Amino acid sequence: MGKLGRKDVLRSDQFTVDEIDLIVKTARRFEAALDAGEVLETMRGLVLVTLFFEPSTRTRLSFETAMHRLGGDVITVAEAKSSSASKGESLHDTIKTVEGYADVIVLRHPRIGAAEEAAAATPRPVLNAGDGAGQHPTQSLLDLYTILNEQGEVDGRTIALAGDLHNGRTVHSLALLLSNYDVRFLFVAPDALRMPTEIVEQVTAAGIDVRETADLGEALREADVLYMTRIQRERFEDPEEYERLKDAFVLQRAMLDRAKPTVTILHPLPRVNEIAADVDGHPGAAYFRQSANGVPIRMALLALVAGRA
Amino acid sequence: MGKLGRKDVLRSDQFTVDEIDLIVKTARRFEAALDAGEVLETMRGLVLVTLFFEPSTRTRLSFETAMHRLGGDVITVAEAKSSSASKGESLHDTIKTVEGYADVIVLRHPRIGAAEEAAAATPRPVLNAGDGAGQHPTQSLLDLYTILNEQGEVDGRTIALAGDLHNGRTVHSLALLLSNYDVRFLFVAPDALRMPTEIVEQVTAAGIDVRETADLGEALREADVLYMTRIQRERFEDPEEYERLKDAFVLQRAMLDRAKPTVTILHPLPRVNEIAADVDGHPGAAYFRQSANGVPIRMALLALVAGRA
Amino acid sequence: MGKLGRKDVLRSDQFTVDEIDLIVKTARRFEAALDAGEVLETMRGLVLVTLFFEPSTRTRLSFETAMHRLGGDVITVAEAKSSSASKGESLHDTIKTVEGYADVIVLRHPRIGAAEEAAAATPRPVLNAGDGAGQHPTQSLLDLYTILNEQGEVDGRTIALAGDLHNGRTVHSLALLLSNYDVRFLFVAPDALRMPTEIVEQVTAAGIDVRETADLGEALREADVLYMTRIQRERFEDPEEYERLKDAFVLQRAMLDRAKPTVTILHPLPRVNEIAADVDGHPGAAYFRQSANGVPIRMALLALVAGRA
Repeated sequence: MGKLGRKDVLRSDQFTVDEIDLIVKTARRFEAALDAGEVLETMRGLVLVTLFFEPSTRTRLSFETAMHRLGGDVITVAEAKSSSASKGESLHDTIKTVEGYADVIVLRHPRIGAAEEAAAATPRPVLNAGDGAGQHPTQSLLDLYTILNEQGEVDGRTIALAGDLHNGRTVHSLALLLSNYDVRFLFVAPDALRMPTEIVEQVTAAGIDVRETADLGEALREADVLYMTRIQRERFEDPEEYERLKDAFVLQRAMLDRAKPTVTILHPLPRVNEIAADVDGHPGAAYFRQSANGVPIRMALLALVAGRA
Repeated sequence: MGKLGRKDVLRSDQFTVDEIDLIVKTARRFEAALDAGEVLETMRGLVLVTLFFEPSTRTRLSFETAMHRLGGDVITVAEAKSSSASKGESLHDTIKTVEGYADVIVLRHPRIGAAEEAAAATPRPVLNAGDGAGQHPTQSLLDLYTILNEQGEVDGRTIALAGDLHNGRTVHSLALLLSNYDVRFLFVAPDALRMPTEIVEQVTAAGIDVRETADLGEALREADVLYMTRIQRERFEDPEEYERLKDAFVLQRAMLDRAKPTVTILHPLPRVNEIAADVDGHPGAAYFRQSANGVPIRMALLALVAGRA
Repeated sequence: MGKLGRKDVLRSDQFTVDEIDLIVKTARRFEAALDAGEVLETMRGLVLVTLFFEPSTRTRLSFETAMHRLGGDVITVAEAKSSSASKGESLHDTIKTVEGYADVIVLRHPRIGAAEEAAAATPRPVLNAGDGAGQHPTQSLLDLYTILNEQGEVDGRTIALAGDLHNGRTVHSLALLLSNYDVRFLFVAPDALRMPTEIVEQVTAAGIDVRETADLGEALREADVLYMTRIQRERFEDPEEYERLKDAFVLQRAMLDRAKPTVTILHPLPRVNEIAADVDGHPGAAYFRQSANGVPIRMALLALVAGRA
């Protein structure tokens, strides 16, 4: 049994390596218990509220299943925007109110910093399920957990992050989280969507080797892990540039012929067309396993913040 | 303990008579247990997802209560349209994702064939809770279950299906399901809304005696079971025809004076005005019992597809 | 173990003093059990439906947590307006249908009298979670419970109700409920928003001393309990009158210097700006505890109507 240093899960860079280790071990223990058909009672008698000020069905369901798998109960606000908040209530007051109903609070909010604000308002643990362009730490942890499961370990691996690296909250958080390990990064993006300088600098300062490229095919030849993200038309000032670039960032099955046979392909989902359907059959296509890993990782976090792990 | 031949419940014509028998017996067993005040643990530790791409509160609640009555847990997407799917995600990917969160999937979708597509995408059992103008097999099974409960048996009974027989998914599925039994059909509809020829032919080919009529009063004199459905104004090209016909398909209490005293009156609900309120007091008015029968039938299906019956 | 005289909870004036006493004692017993870390099984095997025809996240979540804390299950219709009812189904039929799915029904509806209508339609217990400008009895009971907890008792206390006393359903119900006790009332409102004459008369007829004033500061000097409500711009015919009055009904921390040190400040929430944020730190600022008291009070009511208390 271990403990996290903070009562809340707010940022993917809040964790020490020991804490990440604790989370991963706890997730593995729960996953093994479920695989063995055990019915867990870890969170029995506790209530989780999922408070979503913007819809995110995937994240919400994943947290709710995690709570149920631990034997706990759930109350849901799938679209908090249409509730009290719309009557002018502050986030502070909303949190103080749900504090009376729930033992753990999962918050999704469109405003950067909302989760920190919520955590400051209440003694209850708050888990950040995404605060706008800010943080989404449980996503980064499940990404890491997936790399560990698929590759055996993270150290020594070459991780390619590809697609829209400029706007992608997911890849920013993951890059920072992986900087705790002995990895090498390939940042694969068109010029207009390169990884922000501050992330590159932070990662480099952590002693990580980084190479930037716009050539997905080249990156694929070296990568142990390819993390794809979507390139959205609306991010481009010049629509012609989008048309010119978009196909270069679509992963086709044939491109995998030149990849390592042990390559792992990840994607935060939903995908639109940036990974062709025939890639799904590749043994390294791990994005649906990645999505499913949200359950054990969130079970671990829920149990740890509640002091029940 | 028995088993269904398929992992999924997709169509009302997928079942053998033995399977229907198994479902009915299982539903009766669960109903008796609940009546005796037992708290069931049949689905303990399992999670059901109700994934509704169009709203159907009645069907959703009925499935969710069924899962709770079996001791299982539920995660809900009451309006999937406003979620990831709207970001362009395919049904295939949505199903592959919820497969990671749930042990059984209940799907409601506006597109014919969506349930088959979902079932093909996942090893998890998929229960079709209505796919547009396609199938709604759990409704047909609860209709059959109600006839069995109210009439003692189905064989030998004269079943009148009345109202909009042209557009009604419910009556098409029920007609096909009942063709497994020794019944006689009265199809009661205005000319513009007659039962589609292919259904009449299929039923006749199964050796069932069918008579078509537009006279509800006449049908009532012979029927053991009267299954009412709604006639909707928007189905008529000529609004005057609607005005002329609509009252002929409203069931009034006085009309029941000439019916068999043991007649059973069914309706898939919601009703608007096609059954007068004073019919509710008739001992044969079984439509609310019919609606409640959705719970034991869905309990049986959930437990059977999960291998826990 | 005790019993309520009616199967339903519809109006705050339906209860005898003995019944209120029973509800309060039951709530305290549950609260003590939860504080001691007990996991209750009081409602095990039972299903609650929360049927909300208008959104009220706070009330819904509070009932749902109450049911979970008692070991029961919940099915939710957070926005019933977009469901069957919109297909023209009557409230009677909706209730007859959910009667087949749930053991207890919590109803929120915009129409006065809807809860009475629902209760008449079904043998299942119906709890009124607000019917438009009508009743909201569980709110009044949790208000009373909070006064008891904060002040030790109700008898002998001076209760100031302040703000929009004309339109506030909450303050009307609370005034009537408190008339069962030996209290003194201060009704504090601008002229345009005074307490309706019939409430003043009813309360006076019950032998309660009532004084009306428009001076919040004066009321604060005498009050043991100050119950604040919001003054809404749209209630005023003359917008200038609103501008002139609104600040007189905002509670500032400095105003509490002249209040009794033991004063209790209540508010049904959500607040907008009628209580300044720095009041929150005052030991008598009880509005978030008041909100949390919704859980034990609703636990008590659920268990009592289900015969499981």
